[in-house]
Amino acid sequence: MSADSAPTGPPLGGLLDGAPAVVTAGVELFESTLRDQGVEVVAVDWRPPAADVAAQLAAIAADPRTADANQTAVQRITDAQPRWVGVAPARDAVGIGTGQFLHAGPPITWERASGPMRGALIAAMLYEGMADTPEEAEQIGERGELELAPCHSAGAVGPMAGVVSPSMPMFVIENAAFGNTAHCTLNEGLGKVLRYGAYAPEVIERLRWMEQVLGPAMDAGVRQLGSMDLRAIIQQAMQMGDELHNRNRAASALFVREIVPPLLEAGLDSGDLADVVRFINGNEHFFLNLGMPSAKAALDPARDIPGSSVLVAMARNGTDFGIQASGTGDRWFTAPATVPDGLYLGDYGPDDANPDIGDSTITETGGMGGFVMAAAPAIVRFVGGQASDALDATRSMYQIAVGEHPHYQIPILEFRGSPVGIDATRVVRTSTVPAVNTGIAGRVAGTGQVGAGLVTPPMEVFVEAVRALAELAEPPATAGADTSTDRA
Amino acid sequence: MSADSAPTGPPLGGLLDGAPAVVTAGVELFESTLRDQGVEVVAVDWRPPAADVAAQLAAIAADPRTADANQTAVQRITDAQPRWVGVAPARDAVGIGTGQFLHAGPPITWERASGPMRGALIAAMLYEGMADTPEEAEQIGERGELELAPCHSAGAVGPMAGVVSPSMPMFVIENAAFGNTAHCTLNEGLGKVLRYGAYAPEVIERLRWMEQVLGPAMDAGVRQLGSMDLRAIIQQAMQMGDELHNRNRAASALFVREIVPPLLEAGLDSGDLADVVRFINGNEHFFLNLGMPSAKAALDPARDIPGSSVLVAMARNGTDFGIQASGTGDRWFTAPATVPDGLYLGDYGPDDANPDIGDSTITETGGMGGFVMAAAPAIVRFVGGQASDALDATRSMYQIAVGEHPHYQIPILEFRGSPVGIDATRVVRTSTVPAVNTGIAGRVAGTGQVGAGLVTPPMEVFVEAVRALAELAEPPATAGADTSTDRA
Repeated sequence: MSADSAPTGPPLGGLLDGAPAVVTAGVELFESTLRDQGVEVVAVDWRPPAADVAAQLAAIAADPRTADANQTAVQRITDAQPRWVGVAPARDAVGIGTGQFLHAGPPITWERASGPMRGALIAAMLYEGMADTPEEAEQIGERGELELAPCHSAGAVGPMAGVVSPSMPMFVIENAAFGNTAHCTLNEGLGKVLRYGAYAPEVIERLRWMEQVLGPAMDAGVRQLGSMDLRAIIQQAMQMGDELHNRNRAASALFVREIVPPLLEAGLDSGDLADVVRFINGNEHFFLNLGMPSAKAALDPARDIPGSSVLVAMARNGTDFGIQASGTGDRWFTAPATVPDGLYLGDYGPDDANPDIGDSTITETGGMGGFVMAAAPAIVRFVGGQASDALDATRSMYQIAVGEHPHYQIPILEFRGSPVGIDATRVVRTSTVPAVNTGIAGRVAGTGQVGAGLVTPPMEVFVEAVRALAELAEPPATAGADTSTDRA
Repeated sequence: MSADSAPTGPPLGGLLDGAPAVVTAGVELFESTLRDQGVEVVAVDWRPPAADVAAQLAAIAADPRTADANQTAVQRITDAQPRWVGVAPARDAVGIGTGQFLHAGPPITWERASGPMRGALIAAMLYEGMADTPEEAEQIGERGELELAPCHSAGAVGPMAGVVSPSMPMFVIENAAFGNTAHCTLNEGLGKVLRYGAYAPEVIERLRWMEQVLGPAMDAGVRQLGSMDLRAIIQQAMQMGDELHNRNRAASALFVREIVPPLLEAGLDSGDLADVVRFINGNEHFFLNLGMPSAKAALDPARDIPGSSVLVAMARNGTDFGIQASGTGDRWFTAPATVPDGLYLGDYGPDDANPDIGDSTITETGGMGGFVMAAAPAIVRFVGGQASDALDATRSMYQIAVGEHPHYQIPILEFRGSPVGIDATRVVRTSTVPAVNTGIAGRVAGTGQVGAGLVTPPMEVFVEAVRALAELAEPPATAGADTSTDRA
């Protein structure tokens, strides 16, 4: 507030015209003392920055592009109109051929891959007929014969291991506002499933059924329907206790409700129809694989905005946690993934847990998941904690988000829009990492899910992103060179 | 707390053994001052009693049966296991014949009936072929030729006008814990419908389709399924933003999810099947007519417990608001129904509104509806107010409820059980009437729904119930005559 901190620049007209207000940061005593005296106080929960990057933060703040670039990023994210329009084999949807596999998170090699990632790749090789036994598949992996690439590099996202092979059917999601598309495989249900690293015969058999029956049926259903408005489903589900990452109960029920009538009219074999309805009915996470590509489709148009510190991806491959920012192109900032803190199934415990894995943090990046836990207090029964923690998680996310989503609203917060557009500089400046909830995979290949909980993303990745953004920052315009008209 | 107010009776051993705690009532200054001094305080929101019935309240409190009787009532209500087991025509389900009609609320005559009640009776007469024109039907009503009885007197409940005629299909709900049954017609959807007093040709046509196609299909579906656990659906829906009176979005979606697979297997005509699925799919209030009889089935076993001041019914016929208490048998305590305060559809306003109507307050009586609005903050967009009002409504209902429902929990209140078992004496003592939300019917016969809002039940009915309970109260046992063993 002192005059000597004022930058050289436009005149200060208007600053001292109104009644004074005070912004307090950090120490609560200042706030309460002022409030008791009737002073208008805006309290900011302040903590020291996470690393010695004061100069970098200042450089980004002084970059004349930053504010507008971040607003543009959030505007594009929230303008998105994700619609489900079809189902296609991965070979057509994302253009991968035999021996090519997509996976969750930042780039990884077989060598550095964790148990569940290797397990999922083994399952995919068995499913594609590249190997007859898990041992054989493992040898192929060890010989380095697999071509691996992140889902994100191919316009896709995948939950947990996120392994995609050419024959797998994928949801095709179109962002009607920008014309871009995103893809995701279909959800396999719970228990022993590929995405958690299981590769037992039942896993492979289910994948074949999904390819031959489920995928074509879903495609026939959505074609009968025309398209399905996923933004509308997400919007409703968020008013029905879902946060759309680990709680998809309402969204899945609403999905069933929308797809059943066109499925009935699509002329399917009646036995197949009953199987398909029973399968999607029996899986409360079925919508996850539609919510994730909805977020991906919304975030992709916000990529590559020069000067923007807004994140366009957060993803984990079971070894590394990685992020991508709008202003730094396709570069990944990575650090070792941590083990989630949560509730375990049956006799499993923290020793059985693999470090954090999956592209599903795309939900948090798009203003869902951990960011809207206040809308889904019942989720604490799945990930641990109390309902008040869910409220606190969302409230604190407004500190690191650039905007509030006009369509995704949280009733209990008086319909406030969800915090959206994670600003890497705010994460570092406030020492507040994004709130993420997640499923927990067993660390041994073939195990499957062992629990669910909360993740603390490594602060290093945000610090690295800030350093990179600072390197690309433009210097502030001088007063004489200021060409804007509304400051005159 | 003073010794001279102690009744003659058992010794006071134990009362002074522990650390002292303080109960404060009404004036907040006492509470905060004590709390600042580290004293354990239980704050009670106290207001003067609603009427001069201190002697009656004292007589009921002194009745040695009261506490146990109320506990028994709540235990029976919360032990209920409502299951949907079939669909049957009203003639079989509730035993009514030609010219006999059930209606919502306490007893009413054609003469005293409001517009929407008359409109619904006209619709039912047209539907049953008793009249060819609305005018003819009106004349039959005016000549007093209809035999009218409350739904509640026949083990049934009906939303809004709640009119039931012999040919209408009804849901059959069984309380597996006690063997009793309850019934309700099937929900017609929104717009011009009989329950809101509309009787246009489309209304009658829809009723015929419900009789010929929907009812038999639903019956075939539930028989294929065996039975449907409605307690489980209500429990889940309450964690998905429903309060089960005016918000049934989650419950209806869960219902569709459960009924579609057996419907597919029930061997129905495929055109009918698609029509049925589309109909139940398109109606977010479809579950209301299953939730209401679930509550009725739970409350009926709590009837006729001598000494109990717990309510077993609250219901409105559009003219009167009535209640029944457990300890006063089938007697209705009535007072003029008030006009709800809420939000209106289109150009409608308060002048178009009929006074409060419908048996749907059975939901509040059973610990749902207005009592669990905290679980359904999004409902304020339908009935008015803010999300914080929804929380406050539920919190204040704990003051007038005897118990908390072990199955129906509210996540945002840290999974606290819903307030259940309305105690008429607490209503009067605390001047707190039950929180009720409701649809609003147009006051002119034939109009339909004009809005939705909140109702303030008339305090007189609770005062009258207290007077009646006091008349039936037994005097306190004298110390010598005490025969209980656990006080020795």
